[in-house]
Amino acid sequence: MQAFDSAYEQLAGHFRRIGQLGEIEAVVEWDQAVNMPAAAGPARAAAVANLAFMRHELLVQPRVADWIENAKAQRDLGTWELANLQEAERLFLRARAIPAALVEASAVADKTCEQAWRRYRGENNFTDFAPYLEKVVALKREVAQALADTLGVDPYDALVDEYEPGASRATIDSVFVPLREFLPSFAEEVIERQRGTKIVQPTGPFSVPDQRALGLRLMAASGFDTNRGRLDVSHHPFCGGVPGDVRITTRYDEQDFTSGLMGVLHEAGHGKYEQGLPQQWEHQPVGAARGMVLHESQSLLQEMQVCRSPEFLEFAAPLFRRAFAVRAESEPAAFSLANLQALYLRVKPSLIRVDADEVTYPAHVILRYEIERDLIDGSLCVSELPEVWDAGMKSLLGLNTAGDDKNGCMQDVHWPSGAFGYFPLYTLGAVAAAQLYSSAKAASPQIPEAIRQGDFAPLNAWLAANVWSRASSVSTQQLLVDATGSELAPTCFIEHLKNRYLGS
Amino acid sequence: MQAFDSAYEQLAGHFRRIGQLGEIEAVVEWDQAVNMPAAAGPARAAAVANLAFMRHELLVQPRVADWIENAKAQRDLGTWELANLQEAERLFLRARAIPAALVEASAVADKTCEQAWRRYRGENNFTDFAPYLEKVVALKREVAQALADTLGVDPYDALVDEYEPGASRATIDSVFVPLREFLPSFAEEVIERQRGTKIVQPTGPFSVPDQRALGLRLMAASGFDTNRGRLDVSHHPFCGGVPGDVRITTRYDEQDFTSGLMGVLHEAGHGKYEQGLPQQWEHQPVGAARGMVLHESQSLLQEMQVCRSPEFLEFAAPLFRRAFAVRAESEPAAFSLANLQALYLRVKPSLIRVDADEVTYPAHVILRYEIERDLIDGSLCVSELPEVWDAGMKSLLGLNTAGDDKNGCMQDVHWPSGAFGYFPLYTLGAVAAAQLYSSAKAASPQIPEAIRQGDFAPLNAWLAANVWSRASSVSTQQLLVDATGSELAPTCFIEHLKNRYLGS
Repeated sequence: MQAFDSAYEQLAGHFRRIGQLGEIEAVVEWDQAVNMPAAAGPARAAAVANLAFMRHELLVQPRVADWIENAKAQRDLGTWELANLQEAERLFLRARAIPAALVEASAVADKTCEQAWRRYRGENNFTDFAPYLEKVVALKREVAQALADTLGVDPYDALVDEYEPGASRATIDSVFVPLREFLPSFAEEVIERQRGTKIVQPTGPFSVPDQRALGLRLMAASGFDTNRGRLDVSHHPFCGGVPGDVRITTRYDEQDFTSGLMGVLHEAGHGKYEQGLPQQWEHQPVGAARGMVLHESQSLLQEMQVCRSPEFLEFAAPLFRRAFAVRAESEPAAFSLANLQALYLRVKPSLIRVDADEVTYPAHVILRYEIERDLIDGSLCVSELPEVWDAGMKSLLGLNTAGDDKNGCMQDVHWPSGAFGYFPLYTLGAVAAAQLYSSAKAASPQIPEAIRQGDFAPLNAWLAANVWSRASSVSTQQLLVDATGSELAPTCFIEHLKNRYLGS
Repeated sequence: MQAFDSAYEQLAGHFRRIGQLGEIEAVVEWDQAVNMPAAAGPARAAAVANLAFMRHELLVQPRVADWIENAKAQRDLGTWELANLQEAERLFLRARAIPAALVEASAVADKTCEQAWRRYRGENNFTDFAPYLEKVVALKREVAQALADTLGVDPYDALVDEYEPGASRATIDSVFVPLREFLPSFAEEVIERQRGTKIVQPTGPFSVPDQRALGLRLMAASGFDTNRGRLDVSHHPFCGGVPGDVRITTRYDEQDFTSGLMGVLHEAGHGKYEQGLPQQWEHQPVGAARGMVLHESQSLLQEMQVCRSPEFLEFAAPLFRRAFAVRAESEPAAFSLANLQALYLRVKPSLIRVDADEVTYPAHVILRYEIERDLIDGSLCVSELPEVWDAGMKSLLGLNTAGDDKNGCMQDVHWPSGAFGYFPLYTLGAVAAAQLYSSAKAASPQIPEAIRQGDFAPLNAWLAANVWSRASSVSTQQLLVDATGSELAPTCFIEHLKNRYLGS
């Protein structure tokens, strides 16, 4: 049947099959986090590993290399087909670069370390945890070296490239060096300025159904299409599923509705990107979201740039008061627009990254980046982690973490589960978000006024045209140049912070 | 790595992988019915078809035949290993019997016909629907012939064998001939007897959360393990998932709690069978539920034999009154034990199979069996369906369906979706349920008294030992002989009906 298909068509058919397995995996992983009874965990994990193994096997079949070579000789391919071919080759080369035995050893070390982390983190016991992490780092170095040899880049850059194709330490440093310079004194100034503001925390209970109804209302207003997606609950909020069926989750705190709500809007930002990807390229490499920087830019553009702005809160505050009418009537001060704005823009250094505000968040990321970069190049040992962490927190945020590894270098699941090269992308995403939103407003000056009316259409039209619809057809940097006139740079982010927090 | 594994071990490893794909398929199909936004349907269907295709490919690999042949020569296999080998061969032979092109053509015809059915059923338009069903039947005949050639049985029996291994027209007739003789006059007598009983239908609304809480309470009481399963909502109730993670569903009617509740208990009966399968044989052919007859016997034993009995209703009635306290207080007559019993045992011929009581249900099944048997052997044409249906309903239940094909021969999804040989197993399941429950009570006379206290443990112990733990290690008939002393026979079912409805 396939005898008359071109090499490119055969390759595309093969990737459709791989993509369909990926779709199944995405749904099952969502199910694991949202629905699965805990007792089913081990069997499910084995079944998912089998599925991932079969997907990997399809990806590294020798005929994939033949199709790629032959397709390169075809003269009938358009721009998107060529980009698709390039993406397919990238995925193939990465998958084939690491010997199967190393993939397995590294996966086993990651899983074992993550389990150890769950135990020892609770006990604040770094000493017994360290050997597990050492094993992870040792194998991750081997993986990075194998990838580096194939891709012709530095080992740490090869790890970053998995999450953000083309990014490197040079990309990261071009943003982090200026931020490291700007942020500490800026944060101090903001904190000093906010000292005078009295903030009233609304007190609950805020029922989960009420919070959920409000979350659904606001995510729909933001343009998330609930005909092609859902909102559910999980321990760690995430955006999963596939473009035609996006599954976002949040968690609700009955004493504080503000965090669960921003969680919904953040994940809906991810979800809108997925839903805006071009449907005709579904399951093809070029049809996927570009990478973590743009993905995080879409969630942070929605959460930080838009939904913590005065114009959005003007739209949302009456909805808050209606959703929690009993509480709002007994505490009008807590539900005033000024108080809600102050709540959502409060800057306060804290030990925990996931609780950080947008001003202090980059410090958490910069610390992790510097540490993981040095762990991978071998200039830092796992045993030195607590000491280096404490010194970094003192210097970056003025906080003391000595002896508190649980809330220090053991707080995140990333390293124990083998994710190195991921942390810096959070802040690159925040920077890209500011850059994109600035250009969106320049191109469509009606955006803020529309947001004030709860109308996201002008913003979404700009994002759809400039980000979502482009999928992986160009690099992140090219997309940013086309959309904003320049490659990724911290200028707009710094402007945004100055403007929002100091009004300058 | 596998060089030192025996042929049997390699075969078992291969089936573990196939079983793990099946586990993933089960979760995703549950998701499709319970969570998936409708717009995601086509893409999901294609992804699931791809997964099923990969599972089929694994099953029919030539090395599977080699492993089976070599394993047969092994002298170190125990009873369960030998049974596993036999089941593996059965699955392999069935999968390989049908040419790939025929599998695909038949699947496409089924899917197309099911879509046509959804459209034309609503319009009561048999004429335009018929050509689609003709195509399905024509291809199903080819499938049946291909299977029959491989298995050495009659074509219709080859279709029945897919759902209930080893069953045939002879098995079915041995039950249906006596039932066709017994039931019509018996039903008339029961209806005549019930004419004097005044039944009060409780009036709602009964809130969904209240109904769900009661359903969870009763399914847990029945022994369904909610640490290894869930209860959700879907349009058509079903029992899905896998033994370690059983997903049952129901639907709630705010005006009538009785049907949703029995739905939960029915599906929980299926679920308990799955949960009781031997965990050490998970994913192996021998570890699966034996077939549809025993599966349906477990749901009907729970729903019909136990949960509509006076002893169970004595336990449940106070829980009903507590769950719907406001309604129960305003309508005490509707919530009296006598009225609830009368409600749950009301016999009333109806056009619709899924609404039928246990006395008239077999008539619906017998009609469908006689028709599908004749469609497959070619002695009946699709175009004759409405006429034959109407004649059958008149003769079996005294009901007129002329001109009402929507509620006549077009009411079920089974035929439009290609399921032939399935209908008779519902009633064989009801018959097996009566036979098993009768033996359970003979072996453990305390069962009814325990049920009256809400204690299912003695019943479940007997079922676990005699049905669940045996999985597919023996045939259905052998299991029935071991558990009840005889092969499947309608005697106990007829006794049960006489005793329950005429008190004789």
